[in-house]
Amino acid sequence: MNYFCFMQELERFQDLFINYLNKLDMNRDPSSLYDPIDYILKLGGKRLRPVLTLMSCQCFGGQAEEALDAASAIEIFHNFTLVHDDIMDEAPLRRGHETVHLKWDLNTAILSGDAMLILAYDRLQRYEPHKLKALLTTFNQTALKICEGQQYDVDFETRDDVGIPEYLKMINYKTAVLLGTALRFGAIIAGASVSDQDLIEEFGIKLGLAFQIQDDYLDAFGDPGSFGKQVGGDIIENKKTFLYLKALELSDQSSELLKLYGEMELDNDLKVERVKQIFQDCGADIATREEIKSYTSQAFAVLEKLSVNQESKSVFKSFGTKLMNRIN
Amino acid sequence: MNYFCFMQELERFQDLFINYLNKLDMNRDPSSLYDPIDYILKLGGKRLRPVLTLMSCQCFGGQAEEALDAASAIEIFHNFTLVHDDIMDEAPLRRGHETVHLKWDLNTAILSGDAMLILAYDRLQRYEPHKLKALLTTFNQTALKICEGQQYDVDFETRDDVGIPEYLKMINYKTAVLLGTALRFGAIIAGASVSDQDLIEEFGIKLGLAFQIQDDYLDAFGDPGSFGKQVGGDIIENKKTFLYLKALELSDQSSELLKLYGEMELDNDLKVERVKQIFQDCGADIATREEIKSYTSQAFAVLEKLSVNQESKSVFKSFGTKLMNRIN
Repeated sequence: MNYFCFMQELERFQDLFINYLNKLDMNRDPSSLYDPIDYILKLGGKRLRPVLTLMSCQCFGGQAEEALDAASAIEIFHNFTLVHDDIMDEAPLRRGHETVHLKWDLNTAILSGDAMLILAYDRLQRYEPHKLKALLTTFNQTALKICEGQQYDVDFETRDDVGIPEYLKMINYKTAVLLGTALRFGAIIAGASVSDQDLIEEFGIKLGLAFQIQDDYLDAFGDPGSFGKQVGGDIIENKKTFLYLKALELSDQSSELLKLYGEMELDNDLKVERVKQIFQDCGADIATREEIKSYTSQAFAVLEKLSVNQESKSVFKSFGTKLMNRIN
Repeated sequence: MNYFCFMQELERFQDLFINYLNKLDMNRDPSSLYDPIDYILKLGGKRLRPVLTLMSCQCFGGQAEEALDAASAIEIFHNFTLVHDDIMDEAPLRRGHETVHLKWDLNTAILSGDAMLILAYDRLQRYEPHKLKALLTTFNQTALKICEGQQYDVDFETRDDVGIPEYLKMINYKTAVLLGTALRFGAIIAGASVSDQDLIEEFGIKLGLAFQIQDDYLDAFGDPGSFGKQVGGDIIENKKTFLYLKALELSDQSSELLKLYGEMELDNDLKVERVKQIFQDCGADIATREEIKSYTSQAFAVLEKLSVNQESKSVFKSFGTKLMNRIN
């Protein structure tokens, strides 16, 4: 499949999903419970995860349409985590709009979030018993890991001894496993073998790790025009990113780095500039790019083992390339 | 089955469940996520709902042991609702101990609660595919109703036009459906017919309604020694209970009642005394007792239609009688 066709397919999946999502009836009683759900689900976003489910289902020989319920379970679950995470982070904005706990209130954000988690399971229940059991087993495991990942993230904020292996576990749980599950769902629904299910899940996890580490990298070294977030935001917030933890490992200026992260009074621009200099001096920037490359290659290597035709492999590969082409 | 044997059976179910619950491994990482879950699950309580599941499974010809996973799904779910409800109600105590959001903090209570909801589904996934689908379909519907019931309850606090039918719907969703589901779970696992599943669920719902209205009644007219809560607590908190709504319907002193419920400065003892007098003057107390009796009778009438032997029917009936014998 050439690149043009691939992009057309992606758009078709996106349209298919958005069309399906818009038809989900959230005009239910009590509106005080369902209005916030409708609001967050329609705020937009790239719909990356549900598109992965539809794409995977088709690549394993199923119809994308069969995977819509599972894709929406993934998307509703993802949005549930956003609503509850935004409370915990006291975030004022989500996709440029007021977060649910600010637009409504804390209790609404808690309860509507809870209902979304249940609604995700409600979409899954629509599959035939054997597929349902496979979907549910995967989903429970992943959902629990995502809670654990969020808790590790919270715990890391107040810890000074976080190492890179722990950090990788945290982003694996918090971000990567859901990409893996989105892909596995498509494979389950298409009736792929358990071996193919495992492989495509692994592809999603490796790609998710590469993506998240790239996110850390771009936060410091990305192009301000195209990255879409404030460059240096992680540094200003003293976030323990891959870059930061790598620099602590490599740099002979790690005591200065620790001090800069403890500093409250420092001018933000000066701080960002100095921290980036330390990242570069010790080669943490290069080591981080290497890590991204390594996980991306590992992801692509997994694809080779899949028992699907070359065209399907190239679709997965095109997706990975598109996702990762924010760098260079 | 005589009463003595019945009580022995109940105790056996309770022991069986508590033993199983104590063996659930919550000694997991991160402990900051799982410690609060372990804490709330081991705070005690009557374990009413899981006992219903075990009892129902046995009465429909199954082994109580087979129903332990489903019973624990119900109990873990119920405790999840307590953790999140306690945040919303700003409750300091649960079963005489600090609530999770006070013992830890808000974010912990949100996230550990979320993990509990997932853990409930995790227990269900252990059943074979066809039973799993039946359990999951019931559970999703009930879990969503419980969220809706909680939202109605929150909405009612700031509304002046709540009628009795709406109130009954709220307590049906918030309290009664989970008793019905606990019983239905036992029936599903034992392989009972869908008709018997429907009937035993209906029995649980009617009994749940009777129980909740009785709770409203006892809050005002219960024996302070045996009720276990502060008598008049609902009146002091201006709660729109069945008694209150019935009095608004029946009383020619309803404007005084509305005024008493808006009064902030009034001495609590005087307020409780006067409100109870109004409840009695208009016959709301008698009407409420009638309503309790009516739902209890309806519950028992449903049992007659079950296709189980007399002994099983008498177990369900003994349970209902025991649950409701707090009055008279």
